[in-house]
Amino acid sequence: MQITYREAAEFLRNNDNYYILTHGTPDGDTIGSGFGLCGILRKMGKKANVYCSDPLPRRYDFMYEGYEELPFEPKAIVAVDVADPKLLGQKLSVYKDKVDLCIDHHISNTGYAARTLVEPDAAAACQVIYRLLSEEKLTEPDTHIARCLYTGIATDTGCFRFDSTSPETHIAAAELMRYDIEAGKINRRMFEQKSKARLAVEQYILGNIEYYFEDRCAVAAVTLEEMAATGLPADEFEGLASLTTLLETVEVGVIIRQKEEHKFKVSMRSAGDTDVSELCRRFGGGGHVKAAGCTFETTLEDAKKQVLEALSELFT
Amino acid sequence: MQITYREAAEFLRNNDNYYILTHGTPDGDTIGSGFGLCGILRKMGKKANVYCSDPLPRRYDFMYEGYEELPFEPKAIVAVDVADPKLLGQKLSVYKDKVDLCIDHHISNTGYAARTLVEPDAAAACQVIYRLLSEEKLTEPDTHIARCLYTGIATDTGCFRFDSTSPETHIAAAELMRYDIEAGKINRRMFEQKSKARLAVEQYILGNIEYYFEDRCAVAAVTLEEMAATGLPADEFEGLASLTTLLETVEVGVIIRQKEEHKFKVSMRSAGDTDVSELCRRFGGGGHVKAAGCTFETTLEDAKKQVLEALSELFT
Repeated sequence: MQITYREAAEFLRNNDNYYILTHGTPDGDTIGSGFGLCGILRKMGKKANVYCSDPLPRRYDFMYEGYEELPFEPKAIVAVDVADPKLLGQKLSVYKDKVDLCIDHHISNTGYAARTLVEPDAAAACQVIYRLLSEEKLTEPDTHIARCLYTGIATDTGCFRFDSTSPETHIAAAELMRYDIEAGKINRRMFEQKSKARLAVEQYILGNIEYYFEDRCAVAAVTLEEMAATGLPADEFEGLASLTTLLETVEVGVIIRQKEEHKFKVSMRSAGDTDVSELCRRFGGGGHVKAAGCTFETTLEDAKKQVLEALSELFT
Repeated sequence: MQITYREAAEFLRNNDNYYILTHGTPDGDTIGSGFGLCGILRKMGKKANVYCSDPLPRRYDFMYEGYEELPFEPKAIVAVDVADPKLLGQKLSVYKDKVDLCIDHHISNTGYAARTLVEPDAAAACQVIYRLLSEEKLTEPDTHIARCLYTGIATDTGCFRFDSTSPETHIAAAELMRYDIEAGKINRRMFEQKSKARLAVEQYILGNIEYYFEDRCAVAAVTLEEMAATGLPADEFEGLASLTTLLETVEVGVIIRQKEEHKFKVSMRSAGDTDVSELCRRFGGGGHVKAAGCTFETTLEDAKKQVLEALSELFT
């Protein structure tokens, strides 16, 4: 059941002993939503804990350092930034039919929770929580709450770069900055600083991009053998597709990453008007207009050939 | 003479036939200020033209395409984002003692104009112009004016990333976005898309960074011979210093670029608490706490040795 901001606020005021669930492979928005909401509830005098199926990445440590899990049995389960119960991951899957309230911004939210507060126009779940906090006057934010909510908004919008950024996104950021959050420091951490391994992987990929169709398409591929040769962990090779669209002429960028001997994961990004989800659907995949993916069970040469053939229909 | 927003508005209302001067090697803020203010004045029924000593880069073409220079003799000269008359460049140097109004955000503004509206807390000259426009109700912005002012604010703050970004910066962005400016498109152009030459140069520099003092310092050097070998124009080797601080452990990043046989330009960036302007002052240079520079007239080896010795005092 879709509920209003007023009803969500009433739910939070009238209950206690909250378990807040984030999605697996956690990002800045789900972590910011989790610890931000936890801070809000605790400041309202409630008991609340945050849970995640996967370890929280170190780069987000300023949001969870100093956090202490409280000993209590849950009476209310809230999921934040979780569009689908599958995304709760292994450890939290026991709660998948027990979510009392889901706060989210994904239009694809499956409505699995007893109550859903979803605002698809919001750039981040943290923007929804900020609106709930401020419009319904749940409590006065402190520095930590403001820092968590700002971080979720900043990370989900590529620091206010993406189309999802609206005037309301900027206004939320402006209000949250009034709580001494040191936004510049957060942004350096989120958007500038990289690990040595990550820099090496990005260098590797950038050096291996091939351009096609008068530089309107870019394709990069990386095999298991090549990954092993770099000595870098496989998870450093995630989330690299945006590198393929850096060249100003590129409209579609593709990255092909080997997963098993005859299994290749393809990620596509559109920097123009091409709907890459439609392209990926042809190969049994899917996604969003600007970012989509599919999987090939064949050789690298054949996967690349099929992708280039599909692109050639659009770009020649 | 430092004047108020009210006085600046009165000046603009009471005069006509404006020449608007931008600084040389123009960036997004001076171009956005120039064409934004020109749009405002023309919408107020005034005659106004924009001038720059140097050609306007193609990446900013959405701000100046369709602009037409009007035939008139100037009766009022306004400089925007020009902290020092030296920055007007060769062609506009004839106006250096004739500026009637300077609108700026640099604390270092020399006060060379008859009237100066400078707000050092503003993140961009475009933010000052936005405040002037809105507070003093000069006119109602249109899409083009809003796009120019947004672009100046976004480019001077690294898309709202830098410490200079304040709540007022975000509020200006929020208001400007209400005029159909397609901010996402502007941001892709400003912050994501690069030319092939630029990508190649960045790759080259990233591949040549050396790390020192437990990865707390990074030094990259590029010689005239190396630049020639890449076949890329020398101006593509400008503005690369921020690449040296991408590694998360780096506190000071240095780039050394050969200008002549025995002349090396050094740019330093601080990603931590080090004041690099103090470091550069030792070598006869200067700048800001986080970004500074100096020049060595010696060999590359010696320049590097001197820089590393200065850094070793701080980092060992």
